[in-house]
Amino acid sequence: MRFTQFFIRTQKEWPRDEESANAKFLHRGGFVEKIGAGIHAFLPLGLRVLDKINRVIREEMNAIGASELLLPALIPKKYWEATDRWNVPILYKSTDSSGQEYGLGFTHEEVLTPILKRRIQSFRDLPTALYQIQTKFRDEPRARFGLIRGKEFTMKDLYSFHADAKDLERFYWTVADAYKKIFSRLELPVRVVEAAGGDFTKEYTHEFQVLVPAGEDTIFYCEACDFAQNKEIANVAALDTCPKCARAKIKESNGIEVGNIFRLGTKFSEAANLVYKDSAGKEQLVVMGSYGIGPSRAMGAIVELNHDDAGIRWPKEAAPFRIHLIALPGGEKQADAAYKYFAEQGVDVLYDDRNDATPGEKLTDADLIGIPVRIIASTRTANMVEVTMRDEKPFPFQSIEAAVLAVQRYYAR
Amino acid sequence: MRFTQFFIRTQKEWPRDEESANAKFLHRGGFVEKIGAGIHAFLPLGLRVLDKINRVIREEMNAIGASELLLPALIPKKYWEATDRWNVPILYKSTDSSGQEYGLGFTHEEVLTPILKRRIQSFRDLPTALYQIQTKFRDEPRARFGLIRGKEFTMKDLYSFHADAKDLERFYWTVADAYKKIFSRLELPVRVVEAAGGDFTKEYTHEFQVLVPAGEDTIFYCEACDFAQNKEIANVAALDTCPKCARAKIKESNGIEVGNIFRLGTKFSEAANLVYKDSAGKEQLVVMGSYGIGPSRAMGAIVELNHDDAGIRWPKEAAPFRIHLIALPGGEKQADAAYKYFAEQGVDVLYDDRNDATPGEKLTDADLIGIPVRIIASTRTANMVEVTMRDEKPFPFQSIEAAVLAVQRYYAR
Repeated sequence: MRFTQFFIRTQKEWPRDEESANAKFLHRGGFVEKIGAGIHAFLPLGLRVLDKINRVIREEMNAIGASELLLPALIPKKYWEATDRWNVPILYKSTDSSGQEYGLGFTHEEVLTPILKRRIQSFRDLPTALYQIQTKFRDEPRARFGLIRGKEFTMKDLYSFHADAKDLERFYWTVADAYKKIFSRLELPVRVVEAAGGDFTKEYTHEFQVLVPAGEDTIFYCEACDFAQNKEIANVAALDTCPKCARAKIKESNGIEVGNIFRLGTKFSEAANLVYKDSAGKEQLVVMGSYGIGPSRAMGAIVELNHDDAGIRWPKEAAPFRIHLIALPGGEKQADAAYKYFAEQGVDVLYDDRNDATPGEKLTDADLIGIPVRIIASTRTANMVEVTMRDEKPFPFQSIEAAVLAVQRYYAR
Repeated sequence: MRFTQFFIRTQKEWPRDEESANAKFLHRGGFVEKIGAGIHAFLPLGLRVLDKINRVIREEMNAIGASELLLPALIPKKYWEATDRWNVPILYKSTDSSGQEYGLGFTHEEVLTPILKRRIQSFRDLPTALYQIQTKFRDEPRARFGLIRGKEFTMKDLYSFHADAKDLERFYWTVADAYKKIFSRLELPVRVVEAAGGDFTKEYTHEFQVLVPAGEDTIFYCEACDFAQNKEIANVAALDTCPKCARAKIKESNGIEVGNIFRLGTKFSEAANLVYKDSAGKEQLVVMGSYGIGPSRAMGAIVELNHDDAGIRWPKEAAPFRIHLIALPGGEKQADAAYKYFAEQGVDVLYDDRNDATPGEKLTDADLIGIPVRIIASTRTANMVEVTMRDEKPFPFQSIEAAVLAVQRYYAR
């Protein structure tokens, strides 16, 4: 993509009234724009990042056999009443010109369960799992921290339907493994943290927490083993000996919750009378689970973890482009040739072809945009190019063809 | 994709209270599910169709140099007040727990114009064009006809920003050409119809209308030339001689509006004081255009035009998969081998691998799902397969490899 043909506008000023790193850097880099408290526009660069994150999520959801669908946001009141959630404080409501009332979806058990009711008859129809990547709304009085806590945000919500609790348990941990893969690919180190079960279950649920100072949750965890609990339910305190391994002391950290998994049990299938016939022909309630990831919140968490004074340092799989190609004075022809070759090879490249920007402006923008691989053509590189791959030792100048191979090897690692 | 690993549930009954063909067939095929009047869920098959339509739209928008972004649906009241649209009847409103009011976006000039205001300084920043594919909300008392008129629906909205009316005019017709390409790829025959300009301009706007009985608009058109007017502005009647070519009589038809293009002029740039400095350093108002396509409505229009008694006949570029591969008794091993080969070749295939469905059920489902190419393996086909490509004469049985080549040629036509 040519810089001059793509809408990129980095900003010269830090945003006012923003303290979190993700709000600051996403604004400066021209990724997002704040429209109101907890409400953001994703500008073209930001949408590319969100799409990359969503692609990772989709691949791992499809890999565990879940099918993607798309449910509406505008949900008639009767759905919320059926599960007694019409009056939850976070529900945005609207009334239409005929007097009919709606709630804007902050979750979708209410809509999906009746759809499944018309499609599940016997044990042969189970298990099944469906997910969407969709916009959620939440009347959130404490909207803050950029993309971390919003009133409107992107959510991946997965729902699973099982014949019994044992099969739910199997799938629950399959989803946990898929989540670990997703966050590993996004280079987000997460702790799997025990948390309160909400209304649905006496068992703990599990949250996927990124331990960073900007987080709003408080997590107690052990560095020697996988013990970790949300403060809400914790029966330990900082500096206690770990109750699980006894090999280390408990530490305390803030955390950003980027995912969670819930055993819903039969709460929603009872409300909708979602039943199936077992192999003996007897009616049984379907057992459900639900599983969330916040892609836009994950985008914010990535920035909290990955930035320096000059800008964002996107992980490979979340970067808006794989290569930032820059033409500096004297390198214009060589950069054009490189761009043409990259395009032929199907390489995902942003080409800064501006002729009204100084070298300093181009390099500052490259820092703000934060793509891991930078390729420069200039008088100095002559008929070669200079390749800089983050966290790798510098390469000698090389040919355009060799540069592509080096970048492909870098991304395959 | 294996049928047994993908959530497909065709329905045995026609929906109650639905008269339009798109509502009926999309329900029977398991593409969409009605959640309330004008509100639909897109089930996995339906989402695949919508994604295919959106892909065509994105390719043609990117080809004319527009950049994709994503704007919020929850829009604070002050944005609507700035353009005096807070009280338009179709706006859904909501009030949050702190008393702040929002309108749900039915269009996005209000949000985008201020974003551009911070990013346009001089004539060098123009022209520029931005689009999104996003969920719109519209308090629509007459929601009906399946996906044709909804309260919540998918919209592609494009906005363009120009230095003067002449440059807007150039881009306006560029968009018109892109729209013709999009609808041609979707095999939707459209008439470009003159219509009322709304508040913004004395010139006609242009609608892209599919002429079908299920449409809600009334169109007068000439079969001999490109003359066409919406009844709202028409100065002709049926059986009049065409005022443009005089070679034929005017016909009348219902139409479904699948796209429209507007010259906004300076209405919104005046409201937001969106100005730029011209080459003489003088401040000028930016001149704007806006351009819509309804992907979900287009999906409904496609079904209105393309169905027979047995089910939908999806156009090539909108079909949920390119090939429907079916294992009939005795052909299971051959079908498995074909699926494996197709997967290796990266072919987009739905494989009906069910062993608890009869041949009749599989063929009925294939009719309802409506993929243009069907490949069957059975005792009869032995170590070959039977390929049926819609609107082509039947092929003799052929090898798996030859089948793929034939299908690739079919889709390349």
